Amino acid sequence: MTSQLAPVTLESLQQPVRQELDGVFDELVRIIHADFALISDVNAHLLRMRGKLFRPTLLLLAGRVVDSVDQRKVTLAAAVELIHVATLVHDDSVDHSVLRRGQPTVNAMFSHQVAVIMGDYLYSRAIIELVNLADLDALRVVSRVTNEMTVGEMRELEAHDALGYTEEAYDVLIKAKTASLMAAACEVGAIDAEPEARDALRRYGLHLGMAFQITDDVLDYTETESVTGKPGGLDLREHKITLPLILALPHVGPADRREVVALMADPEPSDDAIAAVIDIVEAHDGVAQARARAAEFAGRAEEELAGLPPSQARDSLADGITYAIERRS
Amino acid sequence: MTSQLAPVTLESLQQPVRQELDGVFDELVRIIHADFALISDVNAHLLRMRGKLFRPTLLLLAGRVVDSVDQRKVTLAAAVELIHVATLVHDDSVDHSVLRRGQPTVNAMFSHQVAVIMGDYLYSRAIIELVNLADLDALRVVSRVTNEMTVGEMRELEAHDALGYTEEAYDVLIKAKTASLMAAACEVGAIDAEPEARDALRRYGLHLGMAFQITDDVLDYTETESVTGKPGGLDLREHKITLPLILALPHVGPADRREVVALMADPEPSDDAIAAVIDIVEAHDGVAQARARAAEFAGRAEEELAGLPPSQARDSLADGITYAIERRS
Repeated sequence: MTSQLAPVTLESLQQPVRQELDGVFDELVRIIHADFALISDVNAHLLRMRGKLFRPTLLLLAGRVVDSVDQRKVTLAAAVELIHVATLVHDDSVDHSVLRRGQPTVNAMFSHQVAVIMGDYLYSRAIIELVNLADLDALRVVSRVTNEMTVGEMRELEAHDALGYTEEAYDVLIKAKTASLMAAACEVGAIDAEPEARDALRRYGLHLGMAFQITDDVLDYTETESVTGKPGGLDLREHKITLPLILALPHVGPADRREVVALMADPEPSDDAIAAVIDIVEAHDGVAQARARAAEFAGRAEEELAGLPPSQARDSLADGITYAIERRS
Repeated sequence: MTSQLAPVTLESLQQPVRQELDGVFDELVRIIHADFALISDVNAHLLRMRGKLFRPTLLLLAGRVVDSVDQRKVTLAAAVELIHVATLVHDDSVDHSVLRRGQPTVNAMFSHQVAVIMGDYLYSRAIIELVNLADLDALRVVSRVTNEMTVGEMRELEAHDALGYTEEAYDVLIKAKTASLMAAACEVGAIDAEPEARDALRRYGLHLGMAFQITDDVLDYTETESVTGKPGGLDLREHKITLPLILALPHVGPADRREVVALMADPEPSDDAIAAVIDIVEAHDGVAQARARAAEFAGRAEEELAGLPPSQARDSLADGITYAIERRS
C-alpha cells in the first residue's frame, strides 16, 4: 500500500487546520503560564522545542471531517498536546534521556527533580482546562488515556527480556504508550459527532498510532542522530526490545543470538556491540518485517476513513498515514 | 490556646466518620486496582502503609457538619487521598527519601522510575473517579489544588538560601504544598453547601493546614525516627529551610550563623553538624516561636468553626486542630 502513496510533509497535511494550529500554540502559552520563575524558564524551553503538534493536528482534522472546528476544539487540542508533553517530560526523566528533538531534555537542562514536578504541573494544567470547558465526555476520554499511558510506561520498564518478549506483548505496550493517545485525539476531535463517525475516527487514530510507533522503533535502527534529533540505537542501548528485534530473532543463529543476549546483559553496551546487533537485525529482515507490520496497521487506518464523508480534511488524515510510516524523524 | 485543650488522638476525632473511613479504604482498593503485576505490587505496598487518612477525615467531617454524608462523599474522600498519596510518591522520589511512615518509599523499595510512573498512575486514577462522579465543581477544586501543589514543590526546590529565606516565602510555600489540599478536602466535603459554610470550611482547612505543616517542620527538629517513622533532622540534611530556623536566625550570633551556612554548603552534612544546628535553633527560640505561629493559625482555624452549626462533627474538626499541633508524628 505504502508504495502507491507519494511522500507527504507534515506541513502539507496540516494545511487545512494551519490557522487553528497557530491557535493551539497560543493556547499552550496561555495554559502553562506561571508566575514562578523556574516554571517560566522550563515553559520557555518547552515552547522553544514546540514539536510537531501531530496530536493536535489529528484532533483538528478529525473535528473538521465530521463538523466545523471551533475555539473549544482548539483548546481541547492544546490540552491533548499538553498531556503528550507531560508524558514526554516524565518519560525522558525515567529513561535519563538527554536529547529530544535535538534539544536537551528537561531533566538534562534543569534537573531530574524539576522534570518530575514539571510533568505534574503540565498534567494538572491540562486537566484544569478540560474542566473549564465543562466537557465531561472529553474529560472521560482524556483521563482514561492518561492512565492507560502510565500502564504502558510501566510495561516498558519490563520489556527487557530479549529472548522472551513477544510481538503480542509489544503490541499491548505500544497501544498503551502511543496509539491510545492518538486514538483519543481523534475521538476528542469528533466528540460531538454520531457514534459511528466518532468510533471510526478513534479506530483510525489507534491503527495510525500503532503504525507510527512501529515506524519510530524502526527509525531507531535505521537513522542517525543528525536526522532524528536523538541518538540512533538508543533503544538497544537502553535494553528496550522493539519490533525489529522481536521479528528478527526467530531467524537468528546461535552465535548471533549470543551477541544479542550479551548486549542485553551489559549495563553499558559499546557502540560496536550496538552496531553489531543492528546489523544482525537488518540481516534477518527485522527492519523489513517491522515495516510490513506498520504498513498493515496503516492499511487498517485507511479502511476506517472510507466510511467518512470525503473532504480535504479526510484527505489530510489519509496523508497522515503516509507521513506516519514514511517519515524519517 | 493550645494549652487549654486536652490532647486528642486521631482515632477519637475520626469517630463520627469511622464507618465512612472504612468505606474510603475500600474505595482506594477499588480505584487503584490494576491487572499488571508490577502496579499491583506497588499498590499492595501503598495499601499496607495505609496512612492516617487525615484528609478524608477532614472531608467527611466537613460534609457531616453541613449535611449528611453519602457514598459520593466517600468516593470524593478516596480521590482526595489518592491525590495526596500520588504527591507523596513523587515527593519522595524528588527528595530521594527512603522512609515514609516507617516504611520504605516506593522509590527505595522499587525504583525511582517506578515511583515517577506510579505517581502518574495514581493521579490519573483519581481524576477518572472524579470524572465518573460527574461533579465539575469538585473537579475544579481538586484539579486546581493539584496544580497549586506542584508549584509549591517547585518553590521547595529553591528554599535553600539559609540567610535569605523569609517567613513570607515559607508561608507561601507551605500554603501551596500542604494547606491548599486540606482546604480543598474541607471545601469538597461541603461542595453542595451554602457558599458561606463552604468558604468557612475551606478557610478552616487552610489555617489548619498551615498549623499542620509548621508542626511537621517543628517535629523534624524535636523528634527522632522511632517516633515519626522518618529520620530526625532530615530537612537540614536536605538543606530545606523551615520555620524554626527562619525564626531563630535573626537572633543567632556570627559564629553560630557561620555554622548554619557551613551546613547548608556541605553536600553531605555530618550528624554532628546537624545536631549542632538543631541546638542553635532550639537555643534561639526557633522551635518555641514556630510553635507559637502554629498556635496562631490554629486559633484562626477555630474561629472559622464558630459560625457553623454545632454538632459532633464540628467538635471533631475542633479536635483536629488540637491534633494537628500537638501530635508527635
